[in-house]
Amino acid sequence: MRREGRLVSEAAPFDNLRLELRRGCLVLAVLAALKRERYGYTLRTRLEENGISIDEGTLYPLLRRLEAQGLLQSEWREENRRKKRFYRLTRAGKPVLSALLDELKELNASLNRITQEA
Amino acid sequence: MRREGRLVSEAAPFDNLRLELRRGCLVLAVLAALKRERYGYTLRTRLEENGISIDEGTLYPLLRRLEAQGLLQSEWREENRRKKRFYRLTRAGKPVLSALLDELKELNASLNRITQEA
Repeated sequence: MRREGRLVSEAAPFDNLRLELRRGCLVLAVLAALKRERYGYTLRTRLEENGISIDEGTLYPLLRRLEAQGLLQSEWREENRRKKRFYRLTRAGKPVLSALLDELKELNASLNRITQEA
Repeated sequence: MRREGRLVSEAAPFDNLRLELRRGCLVLAVLAALKRERYGYTLRTRLEENGISIDEGTLYPLLRRLEAQGLLQSEWREENRRKKRFYRLTRAGKPVLSALLDELKELNASLNRITQEA
């Protein structure tokens, strides 16, 4: 096996698996942060302060998707003389967030048991 | 909004988000369970006993993918007069599993902070 090949094949699966893991949790983080109304910049800052960095090219499509699904609502408003789009969790989004948090709790408990026993 | 439409639009996003969340954790569960050598049936049983059910149509492609990535290795052997394919985590898979478990721990910590503050 060539050295370059090995380096690539060892790095790539981890990065992909890590992305897969983060993707599911990212939605949860966005929904959870939007229990309080925020606009894009303050949302990103809040997530980053808590260790979840997300670039704009990922965040805005995700916000649009969650809004189209009825989990978020948004509103354009002026703040400090600038129009900003404020997002917040909808009434329909609350039980979804709560069920996803429960799901994650169960997944974590399952993983803990499997990791300890194996 | 029509009732049928609402029911569909409320159920579908949750199911998709739930699947997204499970997908990332599933790989972790499989890798963790294969720190000990198991064949398909005993692996599925171990996961199910611990609350992670996975059908064969999902499990076997995942095992092949993880083996192709060098994280798992497999071997056909006879046990109780039947040929079985035994899987286990490779030496290269161990640090990947461990890094993914660390990543999940950090994601959980981030989510806890965001959930509590928002």
